[in-house]
Amino acid sequence: MSSSLPSEKALVPFVSVENMMRLVHHIGIETMLAELADFIEADFLRWERFDKTPRVASHSREGVIELMPTSDGEIYSFKYVNGHPKNMAQGLQTVTALGLLAEVSTGYPVLLTEMTLLTALRTAATSAMVARRLAPKGARTMAMIGNGAQAEFQALAMKAVCGIDHVRLFDIDPLATAKAARNLAGKGLTVTSCTSSQAATEGAQIITTCTADKQLATILTDNMIGAGVHINAIGGDCPGKTELHRDILKRADTFVEYPPQTRIEGEIQQMDPDYPVTEFWQVLTGQAEGRRDNSQITLFDSVGFAIEDFSALRYVRSKLDATGLYQELDIIADPDDPRDLFGMLQRAK
Amino acid sequence: MSSSLPSEKALVPFVSVENMMRLVHHIGIETMLAELADFIEADFLRWERFDKTPRVASHSREGVIELMPTSDGEIYSFKYVNGHPKNMAQGLQTVTALGLLAEVSTGYPVLLTEMTLLTALRTAATSAMVARRLAPKGARTMAMIGNGAQAEFQALAMKAVCGIDHVRLFDIDPLATAKAARNLAGKGLTVTSCTSSQAATEGAQIITTCTADKQLATILTDNMIGAGVHINAIGGDCPGKTELHRDILKRADTFVEYPPQTRIEGEIQQMDPDYPVTEFWQVLTGQAEGRRDNSQITLFDSVGFAIEDFSALRYVRSKLDATGLYQELDIIADPDDPRDLFGMLQRAK
Repeated sequence: MSSSLPSEKALVPFVSVENMMRLVHHIGIETMLAELADFIEADFLRWERFDKTPRVASHSREGVIELMPTSDGEIYSFKYVNGHPKNMAQGLQTVTALGLLAEVSTGYPVLLTEMTLLTALRTAATSAMVARRLAPKGARTMAMIGNGAQAEFQALAMKAVCGIDHVRLFDIDPLATAKAARNLAGKGLTVTSCTSSQAATEGAQIITTCTADKQLATILTDNMIGAGVHINAIGGDCPGKTELHRDILKRADTFVEYPPQTRIEGEIQQMDPDYPVTEFWQVLTGQAEGRRDNSQITLFDSVGFAIEDFSALRYVRSKLDATGLYQELDIIADPDDPRDLFGMLQRAK
Repeated sequence: MSSSLPSEKALVPFVSVENMMRLVHHIGIETMLAELADFIEADFLRWERFDKTPRVASHSREGVIELMPTSDGEIYSFKYVNGHPKNMAQGLQTVTALGLLAEVSTGYPVLLTEMTLLTALRTAATSAMVARRLAPKGARTMAMIGNGAQAEFQALAMKAVCGIDHVRLFDIDPLATAKAARNLAGKGLTVTSCTSSQAATEGAQIITTCTADKQLATILTDNMIGAGVHINAIGGDCPGKTELHRDILKRADTFVEYPPQTRIEGEIQQMDPDYPVTEFWQVLTGQAEGRRDNSQITLFDSVGFAIEDFSALRYVRSKLDATGLYQELDIIADPDDPRDLFGMLQRAK
């Protein structure tokens, strides 16, 4: 083999945005959301096996850039992701991401993929995976407050995983609501566009908040939250960015992904450091109680955790062979003789 | 524009291994090493402007996987890099890497590149940039102990930047020495292959150690180190991995990149936490003294720091337009309406 040609180990499967879109359509978005929820649940069930660390954030005036690594001892993953609320005004995505899987035993990458779409999918799948356990029995209606890039994914995941058949939309920008309503038409959901948060929450058993402003906002106030509701709070996900009035937190039982991260980034950054929370993985394993009764208010204070990305990457990797929806990227210099990196370079002249 | 086609912002310039090799040959390796040294020096001179954090390491029995982020407030960078000493026995690289640059203001990536080769180049350029200040005046001979993948890059960087014209090689594996000697033939250096570390250090004003075992080793003992020598210690770069006998550290004045990282990873992990070190950037700015006299032993306890990768990525980016040596990678989902990620997906069906 000519050493100026990349070896097999040097070629890393890469899933572009185009191939990710093809993968979603090939599998079917609801099937994919449901399968992702199962992959995430499977990894939450072996939570203790993972290396866990709060994400490594680089904050600036305009937003945040984060690295989210984790490992189960055999596979390592990380995601690069930004959050720039003001991007939208420039016609850019608030959140873009890419991710990588590598073998722990060699450190060699085995998958590189776009993760903007995949993050939208895994975030929705995680919300639904949690709501499947915490929402009141027979929940059929979800209020979706904040109708940005995440809204339709949430609605379809809650349909596919929890049996929601009615979505009540609200956004401070009616154009966002119109966009979400248009996209959700013909998807098997009753869609109601509302003119206030209050109106959106009427009759809803699940309330999802997903707004993007980097500020301490009050999207939900205490009077909107009736007994028995499950709140899926997604948008309060970095320091100085919350959506719920703290009175709601006083009435609710709060479930989180990884407490050291959520106490910095989640809704509970408003509360004292000893505000009680339940780690959701313990609900799955039976070590902690989930929903107790039909009047309890449950809150999933979701900030997004590295293990969910790990699961999503693992899922995409599991589909590569059967679909062929990837390219091979020449990104690892891998000379025949590993000590002869210089020789490889020289022979390429 | 069809929204199923990627927009300009969605396409990230990607430098493959093949294009990186072409870039090196296009510029010329010695010119590139010298230019890299200048880029790194320029960033060390504005050290205080950077976000600095010890790298985020995931250790396993076989090795380590690390993320190395930094930012100067305008540009953000990170490198993914592994270190697996046992890879070599399987015919794999000990160190592989990839890197990314992004705009801080939007979080959008602007460069993705292979960094196995680029790390070899920047490591050598950093060593030479430091030796240019710390090596004794008129240094012409370098001992190169450890003749693995980094050896030839070190030799050529020391030639291009510091005027070294004689390299004395030693490795416990004579095949590694033979490989390095072969690769360095005809490069304008006198190359002497030696049969012991002791022999290699004879007459050398610069001693570079770059061995790969993950253990507390003693590659250099005190008796090998004469007055006035500059030691460039590269291989002691993670917890439990050192190369120098501690008696050498007692006699030497030690210069480091970023103390919080070096105290964990460098040769000085052997010493007390208050062992005195000089931050090398302060030598460049004039805030600290470099070499005092011709009898002083100077030690650069190099572990590799994120700012060096930042500089290398910045350098590669500066060459893209003129050379065209990149591909465009469809890795950022970027719909026309940023809130309409789902619509972009739907229209791609």
